[in-house]
Amino acid sequence: MEVLNERLFSQQEADLLFEIIVNRRDVRGNRFTEQEIEQEKVNQILLAAVNAPSVGFSQPWEFVIIKSKEIKERIKATFNEENEKASKLFVDEKQQQYNRLKLEGIFEAPLNIAIFYADADKPVLGQTSMNEVGLYSVVCAIQNIWLMARALNIGMGWVSIIDPEKVKQILNAPENNKLVGYFCLGYTNGFLAQPELETLKWENRKQMSDMIFKETY
Amino acid sequence: MEVLNERLFSQQEADLLFEIIVNRRDVRGNRFTEQEIEQEKVNQILLAAVNAPSVGFSQPWEFVIIKSKEIKERIKATFNEENEKASKLFVDEKQQQYNRLKLEGIFEAPLNIAIFYADADKPVLGQTSMNEVGLYSVVCAIQNIWLMARALNIGMGWVSIIDPEKVKQILNAPENNKLVGYFCLGYTNGFLAQPELETLKWENRKQMSDMIFKETY
Repeated sequence: MEVLNERLFSQQEADLLFEIIVNRRDVRGNRFTEQEIEQEKVNQILLAAVNAPSVGFSQPWEFVIIKSKEIKERIKATFNEENEKASKLFVDEKQQQYNRLKLEGIFEAPLNIAIFYADADKPVLGQTSMNEVGLYSVVCAIQNIWLMARALNIGMGWVSIIDPEKVKQILNAPENNKLVGYFCLGYTNGFLAQPELETLKWENRKQMSDMIFKETY
Repeated sequence: MEVLNERLFSQQEADLLFEIIVNRRDVRGNRFTEQEIEQEKVNQILLAAVNAPSVGFSQPWEFVIIKSKEIKERIKATFNEENEKASKLFVDEKQQQYNRLKLEGIFEAPLNIAIFYADADKPVLGQTSMNEVGLYSVVCAIQNIWLMARALNIGMGWVSIIDPEKVKQILNAPENNKLVGYFCLGYTNGFLAQPELETLKWENRKQMSDMIFKETY
């Protein structure tokens, strides 16, 4: 039986969402404070995650909440290894600029979360032609977390310069799970007004007209 | 030079975001109305998209805005083909239930958007160890769109039962682009209070305790 939710949002409410979206930043270790995140805020963030869309209502997400110094040290080691390799891919001035950037906040953030995709052991409605939509459901949950954290004035950074297989081993993850992302969360001493890589002119902001096509390319 | 944004959100504002997140639904053709979406709302939705996080500020997203009946017909044809194959993967009662579901809204929704990942032609900061984070950036943009649309009382549905290569051909997409998702957007005659697949008990909602782990699995 169909039950509708009659909640309509006002333009003012929509504009508040837009403000949260635009003020969200990737936060690294030079901005986190040591202040613990209250458990009720962690709970609201995780509830936002599991209310993301998921293909066939499969909810294929799993979250490992990490605060242990010992585990953080092992994660940091794979970051260091991968980051050293990564640095070599950039040349001259770009490499020097790369090496000056703080690209994670594993120790500085009081809370780390590793987020995995857990493969279903049966066909999933909607996942039969494009198998990757299962992974994409997990990413939708990640974006919900990011926005919810920002609305709670909590910063989050995505650490992608890691060996996902090593992270799986460190966290004793099931063989069939796939690491989607590793995240650092904490209160901050301020959110940057602009993405750092935009301010540094590492990359320029793209024009809308270069990204939007009508009917076909 | 670092410029900070001192905007702090209140718990009431955070709770509004939570309400938008929880009230977002996957909307299909049985709920869309014919009412055109105002251009300023389309613009706000697309601006929300391009303010998503992207690895190395790479902004690897491209959007094809589709209203043409002829293109919709060709997209619908690949849906029909893939959906017929998909139906056979479910058995007995589940297959009958599958066949009763309306799983897209390609014709009914006034606006369709195909969203692509455009590969960078150089190393991307943060994408050097886990190449898939480029695709994940596009999914973050998609979730921003979904939430922004819901806050504007516009429904959106993700159509994943399509052959991505056929969609690329239909839309004349560049060889190196990858289709991430195909979406239907429009005003609705109401948002379901609960995900349809939850109401139908196609899948049960998972317990938080089954998805959250402390320190390791």
